[in-house]
Formats: sequence, C-alpha cells, structure tokens
Amino acid sequence: MSIPVPPVPAFPPAPYTLTSVKGLRAAGVRAGIKASGNPDVALLVSDAPMTCAGLFTKNHFAAAPVLLSRRHLEASKGLVRAVVINSGNANACTGTQGEADALEMCQRVATALGCPLEQVLVCSTGVIGVKLPMEKVRAGIDAAVKELSADVEAGRRFLSAIMTTDAFPKEHGVRLGDATMAGVCKGAGMIQPDMATMLAFVATDVDVSAEAMRTAMGRIASTSFNAVHVDTHPSTNDTFLLLTTRQVPAPADWEQHLEPVARRLAWLIARDGEGATKVTTIRVTGASSDDAAKAVARHVATSALVRTALFGNDPNWGRFVSQVGNVHDVRSPQKLVCRLQGIEVFRAGEPTPFDRAAASKAMAREDVSLELLLDEGRGHALLMTSDLGYRYVQVNAEYTT
Amino acid sequence: MSIPVPPVPAFPPAPYTLTSVKGLRAAGVRAGIKASGNPDVALLVSDAPMTCAGLFTKNHFAAAPVLLSRRHLEASKGLVRAVVINSGNANACTGTQGEADALEMCQRVATALGCPLEQVLVCSTGVIGVKLPMEKVRAGIDAAVKELSADVEAGRRFLSAIMTTDAFPKEHGVRLGDATMAGVCKGAGMIQPDMATMLAFVATDVDVSAEAMRTAMGRIASTSFNAVHVDTHPSTNDTFLLLTTRQVPAPADWEQHLEPVARRLAWLIARDGEGATKVTTIRVTGASSDDAAKAVARHVATSALVRTALFGNDPNWGRFVSQVGNVHDVRSPQKLVCRLQGIEVFRAGEPTPFDRAAASKAMAREDVSLELLLDEGRGHALLMTSDLGYRYVQVNAEYTT
Repeated sequence: MSIPVPPVPAFPPAPYTLTSVKGLRAAGVRAGIKASGNPDVALLVSDAPMTCAGLFTKNHFAAAPVLLSRRHLEASKGLVRAVVINSGNANACTGTQGEADALEMCQRVATALGCPLEQVLVCSTGVIGVKLPMEKVRAGIDAAVKELSADVEAGRRFLSAIMTTDAFPKEHGVRLGDATMAGVCKGAGMIQPDMATMLAFVATDVDVSAEAMRTAMGRIASTSFNAVHVDTHPSTNDTFLLLTTRQVPAPADWEQHLEPVARRLAWLIARDGEGATKVTTIRVTGASSDDAAKAVARHVATSALVRTALFGNDPNWGRFVSQVGNVHDVRSPQKLVCRLQGIEVFRAGEPTPFDRAAASKAMAREDVSLELLLDEGRGHALLMTSDLGYRYVQVNAEYTT
Repeated sequence: MSIPVPPVPAFPPAPYTLTSVKGLRAAGVRAGIKASGNPDVALLVSDAPMTCAGLFTKNHFAAAPVLLSRRHLEASKGLVRAVVINSGNANACTGTQGEADALEMCQRVATALGCPLEQVLVCSTGVIGVKLPMEKVRAGIDAAVKELSADVEAGRRFLSAIMTTDAFPKEHGVRLGDATMAGVCKGAGMIQPDMATMLAFVATDVDVSAEAMRTAMGRIASTSFNAVHVDTHPSTNDTFLLLTTRQVPAPADWEQHLEPVARRLAWLIARDGEGATKVTTIRVTGASSDDAAKAVARHVATSALVRTALFGNDPNWGRFVSQVGNVHDVRSPQKLVCRLQGIEVFRAGEPTPFDRAAASKAMAREDVSLELLLDEGRGHALLMTSDLGYRYVQVNAEYTT
C-alpha cells in the first residue's frame, strides 16, 4: 500500500494583507539563513508607534527573542515601531549568545529607524539549538530596511520570509468601511526536524486603546491561536502579535470583524498540519465550566485514535465519546450527546442508530464538525484540530541525521 | 512508498502461566461471540477463596462488568472464587440491559461453583455499544466450567480466550522457591474499531493478607499497567486483578519478584501497540515531586512528534527537551539533562555534541531508553510508550462502516 500524499491545498490570495493596513510598511528579503535560499528576514514597520498586544508561548524553554519581546512590550507599554523576524533558525536553546543576538537584531532596527530600543520586537522561527549566523542576519536587516514598502507585494514578501515548512502561505484580510483587518501567520505543527514554530501577526488601523487591544487579544486568541491543535506540542517560539496603527475611527463592532481574521489564520495552521487532509472543529457546550469544556475538547483532539478516525472518515463515535469519560472535570457524561457533521450518533449512554456510510461520506470534507453536548452547566469551548495520517508519520519520522 | 509493516514479534512461551500457580484452574472456550470463531469465554477458578486486589479504569463511561466487579470486590472484602471473562464484546455503553447481563454472568458461575455471588468477578473486552449475545455467553460459561483444569494448556486456552486484536499472546511467570508468580494480559492500544481494552490478571500462591495485596497492587501498578502508554486513550473496561491463593509461605521479597511479572506484561502491551516497532522506557528523575515527574513523562510520551521520532530512530532531542518545557510543575528545565540510549544529547540549556548516526543506530532496538534528569527534587517516574508509525495510522484509519 502506497502512502496517499494529500494534495497541497490551494487557497486564493486574500484580498488584503498586512500592508493593506493604513500606516504599515513591510519587507521580506533573502539573507541566506535558510539553506534553500528562500526569503528569511522580514520587517514590519509603522511610522508612528503602533499599539500592540502580545501573546507568547508558555513553554519554559521560551527562546531568546520571546523573552526579549516580552520585556520590550512591557517597557514600551505596548507601543511598537517595528517587528523584525528571521526564519530558518529559532534562536532557541542557544544560551547567552542567543540573548545577545536577539538584542542586536532589535538594536540594529532601532538605530535604522531612530526609535527607542524597546519599541522594536523580534521573532525567530526555525531550527532549535543552532546559533544565529549574525553576519547574514545583519545584512538581511539592512536590506529589509531599504526595501520597506506599503505595496501589497511587499506584504507578500514579508509573509514568504516568515515561512518555514509551511505547505502554503497563510493570510487573510477584510475591510470594514475605511478600516482594514488583516493578518498573516506561519506554522504547521511543531514541525520537523526540530523547528519552533507558530508566528502570527494580525494588524488593523482602527483607533482603539492599548487596553482595548489587550482585552480583545485574550478573547480573539481563545477562538483562534489558542484553539488550534496539531500535535500536543507547544513550541519554544510561539508568538501572536495584535497591532493597530490607530489611523481610522474604530467602528463599534471592530472586534467582531477582527476575530474571524485570526480564526481563519488558525484554521489554516490546522489545515496545513503536516499532511493533514481536513480541519475538525470540536465544539463543546453544557460543561460545568469553560475550563471543563476546554479539557473535553483537548482530550478528544489529542487522542491519536480520534485523529486517525478523522483521517479515515470513520464515524467511530466510541472513540469520541469514551474520551469524554476520561476528563476529570466532567461529572455525568451519561447525558452526553455527540453529533458528527450534524448527525447525532450517541445520546445518554446509548448509540443513536444512524447511516454509517452516509456519515462517513459527510466526513470526507475539508471542514468537519464534531459537537459534544453535555448537560452540566454553561461552559463551552472550541478547538480546531488536524487529522493524523500517513503523511504526518512520514514527515516526522525522517532522520535529522 | 509502501507502508513498512513491522514483523509480528515472536516471544517464546513463558515457563509459567496462571495455572502454574498452586490452587488455580482455568478454561478458555469458543462460545461464538467473536465472528472469527476464536476462543472468547475464559474462566479462572480457585477452590478456596483467593485474596484479590483490583484496579479499574477511571473512565466515567466504565462498562457494566467494571462497575459490578468493583462492587463485588467491596462486598466480598477482597475474597474471590472466580473471574469470568468474555472477549469480542465489551458490554460498554449498553445501558440497563448491559448491567443485567454482567450480573447474570456472575450468577451463572456462582451457581455452578456453589459460592456467594459477590465472590465472582466479571470482565468483558471487545466492541463497544453492542448488547451481549447472552445465549452464546451462557453456553460458553457452562462449557468453561466443565473444562476447568490446572494444566498449563488450560492456562494457555484461558489466555487465548481473553485476546482481541492482540498480535501475540502476552504472558510471563517466575518461580521463587515453592512460590509461583505468573500473569497474562491483553491489549494493544484502545484498539480498532471501537474496542475496550486492557485486561491483566497476575496471580501468585504466596500467603499474604488482603491488606498486603492492596498495598503491593498500588506500587506494582505504578511501574507496570499505570506506566504504559499507547494512544492517550484510557478505555471503558481496563481492569487489573492481582490474586493470591495463599497456599505457599510468602518469601520476604515476594513483591520484588511479582513486580517484574507485571512490568513485563505491561511492556508487552506497549510492544504490541498497533504497529509499534519498539518500546521506549522514559525515566524522569530529580523532579519536584513524583506527580511532576509523571507529568513530564506523560507530556513526552503523548507527543506525536516524539513518538514519530522514536519510530524513525531520530535522535531529535529538540522534541524531547522542548516538551519538558511545557509541563506546568517543572520549575527550571534549564538544568535539564537528556540521555537517549545512555548518550547525553542535551545539558543545561544547550545541546551536547554527539554522534547522530551512532545515536540513531542505537535507537534501532526493541527497547529504547530515554532519560530526563531534572535538578529540582527527588520526584521520579517511569513510563513505557510505543512509537507511532505508518501501521498505527493504517490500523486506526480503517472504516468501521
């Protein structure tokens, strides 16, 4: 039996990207950090300080750029002039030299722009445990500063320079009157051979306060980048920055338009998911608390049995339902209802008769819905997960040697 | 690329099995529950009440036989005359009819043996959500009662009648003076299509109290059946019974000889692991507590990235080490030391130079050791995990439709 390699999905370019946002310029250049010669240094700049909220990995091995960006964001009270990114090297597990290198990247950009050091953030993504080739990084930063532009093409070059093993570019954008909400991200799992991973930048030009951005960030992350699962393995470099240039009066419902941009980006990460063939959105309702609901979603999403069933279009409710019974905070799964693609397959301790062939056919889609309805309270959660197929094993079992 | 199907490992029969234990008789018969026609009703009997300790699944969807056996063990204060098992049907998610069927199985055995109802335990394993074919079960129990024997062959028939999708029989036994310690188990993951799974029976004839058995059970389980991971998916039927007929004076070190029997059985479960090619024993030391150590081992063992690296013989320390950083209770993974097959690959925040090709070669074994040494306290843990390869996906992505 040969390994079915799923075709790389082709999504049309988004109508808007980061440089569509008023006040943003971007660049992406080839600095030679990646052996492939692909673009690997990216720069995002606003002429006036942007208001920024940041969400960083909770991994105790957080990389040097994560630690530094967190400090800068605190020192600048959320005001940011630029974000500099390199791909091809995560600058993680690189000791004190790694810290010095991250700092130098920020300093070089701050000097070029003539702004305070703490208004520059830095992100790295790529291989762990290898020191940055700083000669190349310096030249890359200088070239990126020169090529900054507000063109759509510059936005696309920025995106290509943050990618690593991504199978396709990930961007999304919408316009709401004069305001633009747009974002790009990279990531497809913690990624081979020892990559460190998710970076997401979502920007807008609506005029809202730093406080409003921070509040929105928490809500938006909970249904997007904090609600995506590929392989139970948060990386050392995960970073999500939410930025606004504040150049356009904010519509009342700005957050309702920003959230879907982030959610779409997170969906694209799950869709890439190293050989994934679909994204399954798990919705849990009626749990005793939101935390209990999250635990249910996480238990189901992280089961290799569940994820191989999703890959095989197998409406195997026993796997979904029995995993709910393993969640400590669930009090009475006996009242559970389980729906797969809208088809009820289980209710209150006994199977609901259903047409398995039709359910299997309904699962052979790019978007699959799995609903788990408890009867214990008002807690709810959403989680997007990739399936687990042959290609995941192939990608991840390869030698790094 | 074709899917490499790992050869089924062949282990020589153990020198001792359950019926080698003084006072035990066993049977295994074909009752027709399994479509394959393989043996599917097993019976284990002691002429005098055995002293028994039981460990059952914590899944909230625990099957009817689990709930009943737990009650019987309490009511009988750990005295047991018989254990009746059927395979091919888990009697899980089967409602009140399922409860009545489990009770009837115990009643039929109790009547045949002339013993109190609560001295009979029952286990089921197989497909979830299908009612037991009680006509066949009744005839199977009657036949098993007639065929009870203390022969080694009867012990082997017992073992074959508890198996479901196991690729090979799992038994182990040792003798210590006049005393025998022997056990059998079944299980290879939560198992396709929606099987419910691990059963383990370890018996001895040493004369120790019920209290001593219960204490030993907790310690033994922590390094055997509670320390084995295949797919992050505890089932509805998991049961481990530790039994003694108390016919031989107990040597002082009886527990030290019983524990390896259980550990070997657990190792065999991980080795089966649905297409597994090896068992990796993760040893965590120096954690702030045993719970913290367990959390580290579990985080590492359940990462699909880690398990595919193990399958690929990939000494990819970034995956092992970064996952330690995701454990909430770890205070300073910066001091972590990581050893793979005895080779140090990481120490205190930076990679240790090592020969990757040699390390990869060292990983191409049936038994792999992964050591994670923290510097935070005296907490330690051990976990045996199967690797994750193509065959796992193939087995688990197949239609049940």
